[in-house]
Amino acid sequence: MGGTVLKASNAAVNKPVNVGIVGLGTVGGGALNLLRANAAELSRRTGRDIVVSHVGVRREHPNLNLTGITVSMDIFAVVDDPAVDVVVEVIGGITAARELVLRAIANGKHVVTANKWLLAEHGNEIFSAAEAKGVYVAFEAAVAGGVPIIKVLREGLAANNIDWLAGIINGTGNYILTEMRDKGRSFADALDDATALGYAELDPTFDVEGIDAAHKLTIMASIAFGIPLQFSKAYTEGLSKLTRDDVVYAEELGFRIKQLGVARRTREGVELRVHPTLIPDDRLIAHVNGVKNAILVQSDAVGTTMYYGAGAGAGPTASAVVADIVDVVRALTAESAPNVPHLAFMPGAITNTPILPMEDVVTSYYLRLQAYDRAGVLADVTRILSNHDINIEAILQKPMQEGGSVPVIILTKPVVEREMNLAMAELEALDHIIGSVTRIRMEPLA
Amino acid sequence: MGGTVLKASNAAVNKPVNVGIVGLGTVGGGALNLLRANAAELSRRTGRDIVVSHVGVRREHPNLNLTGITVSMDIFAVVDDPAVDVVVEVIGGITAARELVLRAIANGKHVVTANKWLLAEHGNEIFSAAEAKGVYVAFEAAVAGGVPIIKVLREGLAANNIDWLAGIINGTGNYILTEMRDKGRSFADALDDATALGYAELDPTFDVEGIDAAHKLTIMASIAFGIPLQFSKAYTEGLSKLTRDDVVYAEELGFRIKQLGVARRTREGVELRVHPTLIPDDRLIAHVNGVKNAILVQSDAVGTTMYYGAGAGAGPTASAVVADIVDVVRALTAESAPNVPHLAFMPGAITNTPILPMEDVVTSYYLRLQAYDRAGVLADVTRILSNHDINIEAILQKPMQEGGSVPVIILTKPVVEREMNLAMAELEALDHIIGSVTRIRMEPLA
Repeated sequence: MGGTVLKASNAAVNKPVNVGIVGLGTVGGGALNLLRANAAELSRRTGRDIVVSHVGVRREHPNLNLTGITVSMDIFAVVDDPAVDVVVEVIGGITAARELVLRAIANGKHVVTANKWLLAEHGNEIFSAAEAKGVYVAFEAAVAGGVPIIKVLREGLAANNIDWLAGIINGTGNYILTEMRDKGRSFADALDDATALGYAELDPTFDVEGIDAAHKLTIMASIAFGIPLQFSKAYTEGLSKLTRDDVVYAEELGFRIKQLGVARRTREGVELRVHPTLIPDDRLIAHVNGVKNAILVQSDAVGTTMYYGAGAGAGPTASAVVADIVDVVRALTAESAPNVPHLAFMPGAITNTPILPMEDVVTSYYLRLQAYDRAGVLADVTRILSNHDINIEAILQKPMQEGGSVPVIILTKPVVEREMNLAMAELEALDHIIGSVTRIRMEPLA
Repeated sequence: MGGTVLKASNAAVNKPVNVGIVGLGTVGGGALNLLRANAAELSRRTGRDIVVSHVGVRREHPNLNLTGITVSMDIFAVVDDPAVDVVVEVIGGITAARELVLRAIANGKHVVTANKWLLAEHGNEIFSAAEAKGVYVAFEAAVAGGVPIIKVLREGLAANNIDWLAGIINGTGNYILTEMRDKGRSFADALDDATALGYAELDPTFDVEGIDAAHKLTIMASIAFGIPLQFSKAYTEGLSKLTRDDVVYAEELGFRIKQLGVARRTREGVELRVHPTLIPDDRLIAHVNGVKNAILVQSDAVGTTMYYGAGAGAGPTASAVVADIVDVVRALTAESAPNVPHLAFMPGAITNTPILPMEDVVTSYYLRLQAYDRAGVLADVTRILSNHDINIEAILQKPMQEGGSVPVIILTKPVVEREMNLAMAELEALDHIIGSVTRIRMEPLA
């Protein structure tokens, strides 16, 4: 029962904490500005002054006031600076970032990073190095921007066995889907708009193909279930094949389409998948629109909880970076690194539960076929589904379109994806089915 | 840069942590069961076994398995037991609970409590005693059940100046309002139902008069703004005067009525108030229904975030109690008490920002008058409002009712409550206005 809570009287004698920031782009500049703007409030919270003493940059930043700060064009000078207590890595990318973070750790410095790509790919190596050295790598900003979902999963819900989580964790993708639904726009149009507004990168592949979401999902799944980071095993499916028709038909059936990252613990293994998903429109998360993020978590004691907010942008991401700095400073002041394990579970207690191949995942499906309006079409379709033990929940045939074909929408009951793949191949081989079958997975989220 | 993260190899040699639980009602029994059910997962998370070694009860609990646990009918025996590391206080009430918690602290034990009433009334004394003794009093379960809002405000949003927060923080109240809206029931009917379902206590005063919500709001406001707990200065207004008509008219105007706890930092002081509130129906929190809780937080860096989940019940509340135990165990293992201040800000940095009297609060209003349908009524009403500089946002006159009177609904622009009180008195004095004027405050939540 040792240890003492810092008394107010100690606050004055504690020396400032020196922060080194590597990268002064949107997030780094935002963190610098936030540390200054809320300096008094941060000192009230931690009992210490938090000072940015050194920044590493690769170009000039004439719009930032760097008075009193050491500026190095060699970014490694920051992590080698003996006066720096905490290194903030916000350069992005994975090659230089990995080297930089590992060197900071080797130098005995705590690290704060917003780099989900880096952690999804190299997190196991980085956390292992940090644990060996007795320093901490904090990464709240890597997932869902300013929504403190890492802390919630790792500490707030620590009493629970987490069953599954499902998140809208890419703001660009959610903006596109919201525009498609609310304004009847096509995927391509909505993406152009997202790019013009600065939500999507010039190369939007990571956003629209679900890769960025899969990075974040990989991190959350590790923390929720106590498993190693395994980004390479995540299933990703993008938004580009979605049509406006699908959005409308889903709506008619009482659903909305969201790009969800889903991680679920089953007896056989862990599901780790990002794909467009039909969700019932009476779920709160169905009403999360625009660039916002939200994560729904299902756990055994608390039941369903949800966490909502801005997933990107200078302010929200800087909020998470600075919250991590506060955690580290509070720990430094307690003269002990935080004893919260990086991945929520003790390093020796991480389990090797396998990630399920997508073919083994069970979900319900929305299917859309384009069929010639001939006698026997529905009989053929339902026979094929029945042969694969796929039960139909609802069926909707739309009016005939130009060319004499009709769209048929089918909602199925849960079935393993392997069977659905076989059934889809047989459906597509039918003479009176035109083109490929659109398949969107469904999640009841209940 | 001292301190080390606990290595896996240490886990085995650490002895179990002994927990004493005082009170084995819904929450205490829930915590006991959860600590057992998830024992393996908790050990994976903390590197320690967590064992309930001693319980204090005032009656027999034949439905709980207490094998291997010391059972004392003298509840103080638990806090005096040298083997107990952490005391969980879940007896409720404030007299014995206060004495018990202070004695546990004096005995050098960390305390976990779910008792919002106790903290709202005696929190300043309790936290001060804990800080002097170097122990920790954790209270996640006191607000919003299993939603980790205390941790979010104190740590997750630590980078931010919090501007305001608004919460649906009493499940019984929200259940009643949901029933009134969805099923057209009266307040009294819905309350009867809530009592029959076990949501409301036999004496539901704390729930329906906003007192329970004000306890929770008092705690959240202290943490959000770094001010002492000041429950006695909170404004509370209950649900009992709300009519089904108000719910319907609000809906027609694009709003829903929720019982909100609002804490806002203004230049003049802190608003601390619980009352029925009209909120725009396109806000996510407007769709939080039934016994669920949700807290919306507006802060300068991250913007708007929201936290949603079950606010009561054995599982959710036990989830928060056990999360607090995990925090304490992780700190014990780091050989240092957590350095997170009880009220989020360092004890010496708590400010004496005044709580604003309700008369000084500025909001918009929904007003409902019952007026005889005579020439000049609307002219009189609008003249009185205008004399008090109250601008009208919308006005809605409903069809004539039996007795020849009409309901008139007015939405105003923001005005200080003092002026509204004066205007309401003048309105009620008009000959052609029947009875009193219904006034519901509005919050844009944007």
